[in-house]
Amino acid sequence: MDADFSKGVAFVEGNYVPVEEARISLLDFGFLRSDANQDTVSVWRGRFFRIEDHLDRFGRNIARLRMTCPYDRDQQREILHRAVALTGFRDAYVQMLMTRGRPPAGSRDIRLCRNNYFVFCLPYIWIASPERQQQGLDLVVSKIVRVPPETVDPTIKHYHWLDFEMSLFDAYDRGADTCVLVDRDGNLTEGPGFNIFLVKDGRLSTPGGGVLDGMTRTTVFELCAETNLDYAMAKIPAAELAQADEVFLSSTAGGIMPVRSVDGAAIGEGAPGPVTLRLKHLYWSKREAGWHGAPVDYARAAEAAGD
Amino acid sequence: MDADFSKGVAFVEGNYVPVEEARISLLDFGFLRSDANQDTVSVWRGRFFRIEDHLDRFGRNIARLRMTCPYDRDQQREILHRAVALTGFRDAYVQMLMTRGRPPAGSRDIRLCRNNYFVFCLPYIWIASPERQQQGLDLVVSKIVRVPPETVDPTIKHYHWLDFEMSLFDAYDRGADTCVLVDRDGNLTEGPGFNIFLVKDGRLSTPGGGVLDGMTRTTVFELCAETNLDYAMAKIPAAELAQADEVFLSSTAGGIMPVRSVDGAAIGEGAPGPVTLRLKHLYWSKREAGWHGAPVDYARAAEAAGD
Repeated sequence: MDADFSKGVAFVEGNYVPVEEARISLLDFGFLRSDANQDTVSVWRGRFFRIEDHLDRFGRNIARLRMTCPYDRDQQREILHRAVALTGFRDAYVQMLMTRGRPPAGSRDIRLCRNNYFVFCLPYIWIASPERQQQGLDLVVSKIVRVPPETVDPTIKHYHWLDFEMSLFDAYDRGADTCVLVDRDGNLTEGPGFNIFLVKDGRLSTPGGGVLDGMTRTTVFELCAETNLDYAMAKIPAAELAQADEVFLSSTAGGIMPVRSVDGAAIGEGAPGPVTLRLKHLYWSKREAGWHGAPVDYARAAEAAGD
Repeated sequence: MDADFSKGVAFVEGNYVPVEEARISLLDFGFLRSDANQDTVSVWRGRFFRIEDHLDRFGRNIARLRMTCPYDRDQQREILHRAVALTGFRDAYVQMLMTRGRPPAGSRDIRLCRNNYFVFCLPYIWIASPERQQQGLDLVVSKIVRVPPETVDPTIKHYHWLDFEMSLFDAYDRGADTCVLVDRDGNLTEGPGFNIFLVKDGRLSTPGGGVLDGMTRTTVFELCAETNLDYAMAKIPAAELAQADEVFLSSTAGGIMPVRSVDGAAIGEGAPGPVTLRLKHLYWSKREAGWHGAPVDYARAAEAAGD
């Protein structure tokens, strides 16, 4: 009987299963110690975006965590293609991840753990819906300090999100869509799942350190170079948001998302600004034209089903 | 057919299952966002230790995380008893935990998540084996900064352990048993699963803030009061370890554990010291005599099996 992958699929312990059935051991240190790393690649109109860059970063980060993937890079790529193919999704959110696993019975030595590799594929996720993006998002600045680089390197795409979660509750309480966290000196860092950009006098800036080197952030840099926009990575005090002409967020889960207010005060005209809209349009139109794209090999679904 | 609980049991989605089969959804935000809280109670010689204190702390912490447990306190207590009873373990490590769960389909709103409750019971876990404890542990001071209070309140017993994990790798590389982390000013915080104490001129000290309010730490305070030992909660620069007469660790998973060296330099005589040994002996002998103890209701195993 055919499995139902209409809600998504996961690759777990070597098998493709409906995502609703995907499970991890309660005792995996990936859960009990949040000892894990992920990378998320998107598919839009049937094409992976920057899949090789994601495989690069994932490989680099798991090595830094001293994890070993049982699948080599070619096999990982193949699993990602098969996963999307099995769902048939043209627009998808595809996360690859590794967990520490468990040490052998009788041991507590994390060096002896057999690391586990998982993939899951869901319909494309929007941090903010296209409708909310048209209006522009309402953002708040949280007083919570993002996990600092001295604790966990932020370029490791980890799951230490309790700071984000508590900040999100606060944002919702204040009627906002999402939040951005600060460092201990009150400089901007990042928000739950995104980097942040400011536009002032036609120039872009984004926090330089203490944040994830987001793939969409890198993509924004490339779009700036193409369109002769200046950008800088800098320390940005949160108070500078109030002076910005425009603010936007960048994420694999939503692309380039305009912000219309910060802490209840309008940014610019209180609607998405021209620089943001130009970049947003460019981002999606170029993606749809195949930029950095690798077509999903949908024919693999049949192969996988025949396994 | 009877399930095999010889390796432990877990309470998952309302059922008692062999711990090796216990699973959590890969999509639970308890995993994907480490949005979870736990409390761990031990059983020794057939008695829970401070079970009501653990239920207090767990209830307090899940409320602070805005989680709702589907089981009230009496039901939680009963599940803990049944879990241990099903294994028959006389000495056990029993963890209760809650995860954020998942939002309803189509939503990303964490306020709408149905929170999940789990319990698992394993044979008693020793952070350091009784043999290593007799010699005294070799400890290193990590340069990694523990998740700071401005990021996540350390009295929330959370799973943000990547700082601990990376420090443990470093400790193993240096031939040590475990590690203690510092705050950004170089003061001692805690290690993977334990609080730390110093003894100097017959007086105890332990970090006062930025650490878990460990149950065994509280127990040490009570033992101090009983035996007329002075203790203080203080900011303790890591360098003070070198001057200490004795150092020990406190944890539900191991009790009071002597340290014999820090960063390769002997503490005192390079063996467990007299104050530590007195407290360790007192801790275990009082526990065996029933102090703060609640006998496990082993008769509940039959009830549960009959469910």
